Amino acid sequence: MSKHVVVIGAVALGPKAACRFKRLEPGSRVTLIDQAPRISYGGCGIPYFVSGEVNSVTDLQSTPYHIVRDAAFFKTNKDVDVLTNTRATKVNRAEKTVEIVDVLTGKTDTLHYDKLVLAMGSKANLPPFEGINLSGISAATNLDEAEMLRNAVAAGQVNSAVIVGAGFIGLEMAVAFADMWGIETTVVELQDQVLPNFLSKSMATMAQHDLEEKGVTVLLGESVQRFEGEDGAVARVVTNKRTIEADLVVLAAGVSPNTGLAKEAGIECDPRGAIIVDEYMRTNDPDIYSGGDCVTIPNLVTGKRGYYPLGSMANRQGRVIGTNLAGGKDTFPGAVGGWVVKLFDQSACGAGLTIENAVKEGFDAISVHVEQFDRAHFFPEKALMSLELVVDKPTRRVLGIQGMSELGDALTARINAVVPLLKAHSTIEEVSNLEVVYSPPFASAMDIVNALGNVTENVLEGRNHMMTPAEFAKAWGNCDTDEMCFIDTRLSGNAQPLVEKYPGRWHNIPNEEIRARINEVPADKPIVVICNTGLRSYEAMLLLNELGRGDVKSAAGGMVAQKKIGSAI
Amino acid sequence: MSKHVVVIGAVALGPKAACRFKRLEPGSRVTLIDQAPRISYGGCGIPYFVSGEVNSVTDLQSTPYHIVRDAAFFKTNKDVDVLTNTRATKVNRAEKTVEIVDVLTGKTDTLHYDKLVLAMGSKANLPPFEGINLSGISAATNLDEAEMLRNAVAAGQVNSAVIVGAGFIGLEMAVAFADMWGIETTVVELQDQVLPNFLSKSMATMAQHDLEEKGVTVLLGESVQRFEGEDGAVARVVTNKRTIEADLVVLAAGVSPNTGLAKEAGIECDPRGAIIVDEYMRTNDPDIYSGGDCVTIPNLVTGKRGYYPLGSMANRQGRVIGTNLAGGKDTFPGAVGGWVVKLFDQSACGAGLTIENAVKEGFDAISVHVEQFDRAHFFPEKALMSLELVVDKPTRRVLGIQGMSELGDALTARINAVVPLLKAHSTIEEVSNLEVVYSPPFASAMDIVNALGNVTENVLEGRNHMMTPAEFAKAWGNCDTDEMCFIDTRLSGNAQPLVEKYPGRWHNIPNEEIRARINEVPADKPIVVICNTGLRSYEAMLLLNELGRGDVKSAAGGMVAQKKIGSAI
Repeated sequence: MSKHVVVIGAVALGPKAACRFKRLEPGSRVTLIDQAPRISYGGCGIPYFVSGEVNSVTDLQSTPYHIVRDAAFFKTNKDVDVLTNTRATKVNRAEKTVEIVDVLTGKTDTLHYDKLVLAMGSKANLPPFEGINLSGISAATNLDEAEMLRNAVAAGQVNSAVIVGAGFIGLEMAVAFADMWGIETTVVELQDQVLPNFLSKSMATMAQHDLEEKGVTVLLGESVQRFEGEDGAVARVVTNKRTIEADLVVLAAGVSPNTGLAKEAGIECDPRGAIIVDEYMRTNDPDIYSGGDCVTIPNLVTGKRGYYPLGSMANRQGRVIGTNLAGGKDTFPGAVGGWVVKLFDQSACGAGLTIENAVKEGFDAISVHVEQFDRAHFFPEKALMSLELVVDKPTRRVLGIQGMSELGDALTARINAVVPLLKAHSTIEEVSNLEVVYSPPFASAMDIVNALGNVTENVLEGRNHMMTPAEFAKAWGNCDTDEMCFIDTRLSGNAQPLVEKYPGRWHNIPNEEIRARINEVPADKPIVVICNTGLRSYEAMLLLNELGRGDVKSAAGGMVAQKKIGSAI
Repeated sequence: MSKHVVVIGAVALGPKAACRFKRLEPGSRVTLIDQAPRISYGGCGIPYFVSGEVNSVTDLQSTPYHIVRDAAFFKTNKDVDVLTNTRATKVNRAEKTVEIVDVLTGKTDTLHYDKLVLAMGSKANLPPFEGINLSGISAATNLDEAEMLRNAVAAGQVNSAVIVGAGFIGLEMAVAFADMWGIETTVVELQDQVLPNFLSKSMATMAQHDLEEKGVTVLLGESVQRFEGEDGAVARVVTNKRTIEADLVVLAAGVSPNTGLAKEAGIECDPRGAIIVDEYMRTNDPDIYSGGDCVTIPNLVTGKRGYYPLGSMANRQGRVIGTNLAGGKDTFPGAVGGWVVKLFDQSACGAGLTIENAVKEGFDAISVHVEQFDRAHFFPEKALMSLELVVDKPTRRVLGIQGMSELGDALTARINAVVPLLKAHSTIEEVSNLEVVYSPPFASAMDIVNALGNVTENVLEGRNHMMTPAEFAKAWGNCDTDEMCFIDTRLSGNAQPLVEKYPGRWHNIPNEEIRARINEVPADKPIVVICNTGLRSYEAMLLLNELGRGDVKSAAGGMVAQKKIGSAI
């Protein structure tokens, strides 16, 4: 039963679906069409090409062993027909045809399909700013834009760059400009934090501090008004608060599904414009499949529809589509929304909901922040990892986890471990007892992810009263009001410099001396205890409670977290 | 309701249970006893102390912020009474007492308990070899032995060392001797592979090659007969095959539960001597808890009893016991047996069953080996990771996963992600669609762990016929018999050196030329195709099948795997 499969879009999902199908049904025919001349490239690699870490743009188009995945490659190696420079202009579902046009010659044609795959991906959100068509402004989402950026920075023509949007691509591009090329880089973000919706506001201050320490200017709660140019090239970005010099501008204000074609053909979409598919990745037309950046799939934490424009989603879904095109019954049940991004010294990673989004979704949620070494503390190479767990109080269900660390792979080892728990709607007990592989070069005997579950349990049980790192920093900022008593419970060798720096404000009573010196602890005002990471201060809090001091809070993550957020202590 | 809890054993589980209980019930009393003078140390860190990576033995006894966890620390900081140099000689369950003796003075005493925790850990297996009491022979399991070893190597007195046993401790000690001190090191293992029961025989050859490349001699299938000494110190190890010079010998032939005391008191144990506990970590006496290296807990893959003498197990179980001593109902349902070990360039990691053990357990199991970059292949810093998945054929259930890689944290990120799937008895479809966090510096868009699920599915569906790396090496070893045709399907630039080295034996037909050159492929003998990692050779196999060549196998892991096992090609 030979058939003809047409695939519109040849970047990630399209080629995957096409090749998988051909391997299963070598006797059938596949036509893969794309409006661009270059196909099947790793778009997520663009920041690393711009930075210079990836040498050539063809590296992004190549197999691991340096064979360029062009039309000839697909024909020879996969027996897949590819039409590049070919735009699909209309899908006629009744006739089962796709109208196409050669974007170079204007020549039109019509392809008949038995099965159709919509793999047009996403398009960058381009707000209608005045001056948006000036040269030097791009979204950095395709290879032409990538080459423009790389050529400009490599030619030494760029002194300053502005990134609009502090999401993944925005921050990756900021690192590429500032770290590798020493360009004065400013990130302008409309919301009041970097990585909005992915990190809690509290933890986002850590990411922001990492950027700022390396010289990137981060402007939050600020909106771009227009771009100004000179001789047709961008020269300045005007925001609601200031004017910023800019030889280059990257618009990284998110992406939207590129589904106009689908909508016109009556394919069902959600309000965002993402195509609605069933678990077999089939649209409302049983002969039409879609996936990747085009579709909405279930968020397995909330049960609602989510949007996950990620190369990994596209590849996994592409294989499911390829299987089902050949009569298979593979399913793709949804996602919990895992992600990771490399900044400068720090990497950030997470899955599921942030505390802010959990509350927005109606959960009675709390979040708990822990700092701990990512492996045995006596092992020489190690990093202090930050993790935050988001939990639904009444059910103790785990809703999300986010983290930051210098050793990014070790961070992904913890987040990946929790992803199946998010999917299974597990409770924090499963985090406390989560089996993560252990030996001293890789984990602690009581690993940070287990400790995170344990501390969360203590918080839920009302035994541990914590301040987030951001709350502590804010409270300390008001220390002159003398409304709270700040007690450093580390040994005096560690605490002394701060006691001397802030006489009468920063107190030091090591855990070991609390019983003997309890009379120094005021009974008439709130007390905050802090240590290195929060371990000793938790015990100090318990002891103070036992000795009759009721209003005591422990600073989550201790001094380590304060340092990571760039707190002014 | 104040009570007295006695804890026998103060290394890992004991202190954890004691401190957790005291935090929950500060009004109760805990007595922690241990026969050694030093307590609460990271025994798993001993190889890193011997190597010199950990500077001082007190680092293994200290908190992350350098406070030594001695008896005074526990009294002052945790309000836990500690009796060191104190051996428990008898538990009288009817009276609820423990008889103790001071090992220095011989003074005896009796402690009454309300609840008792048995945390005596494990003891090294010491086979009754002649000469075992010579100096320089130790099991490297306590701090005294650790100091003896470190002092000896640091003094430059050690030219050669023999390790008996190629398990975790054995290999960690071999690395410590050879890597950091340049000592001529030999590992003698009774079984025919390193890391028996943890890596498949095939993948164990990779670990062995890593050891041998760094100068460690690995002797498999060889049994120690006796030790010979000079002036009371060990000088030679005599095996059934040879005599080996040895200034130091480490006996790393596994450990057994140290439960004599428990058995005498009528506590129920399994045939191995491990205490049987319920999910609350309670023994057959409801007032007596046990955990860590003393107990057997369910293997969540087989449903049978397993034994997991790991510091991480002890810590997590210790907390459960601490909670339950205070009237809680925490549970510890079991383990899938996750582990990780750092060798020289490579680290090895796994969870669940190996293929050999799966078959032994009665599963109709197969295993599939994949080699792939651990992150986007265009990202500059990366490693080729090896993964092996073990699957039950009839149910497609995942039974185990093992791997090796140079970037160990990235390896743990994949194994940790699969652990919850092993626990949940998931099928390979969940591996194919497993959500692992993605961006180019951390993962591939089609990540190796997803590819592992995909390849396994192709094998189960009969589409992919593979040879394991070890099988390929063996077949190539017989290439002179001309019984098989070996075809390298890489581009000729890669294959040419081998074609010239093995004229008439090593053939090269790149995938791109198979159709045109099909007549060069014999139809009358088995064919093996090989490429860099197994991706191209899979497609070559499909094409050869399509073109009428039925008996074709693809070399799993390709040339990369051959190189990792040290194959003679």
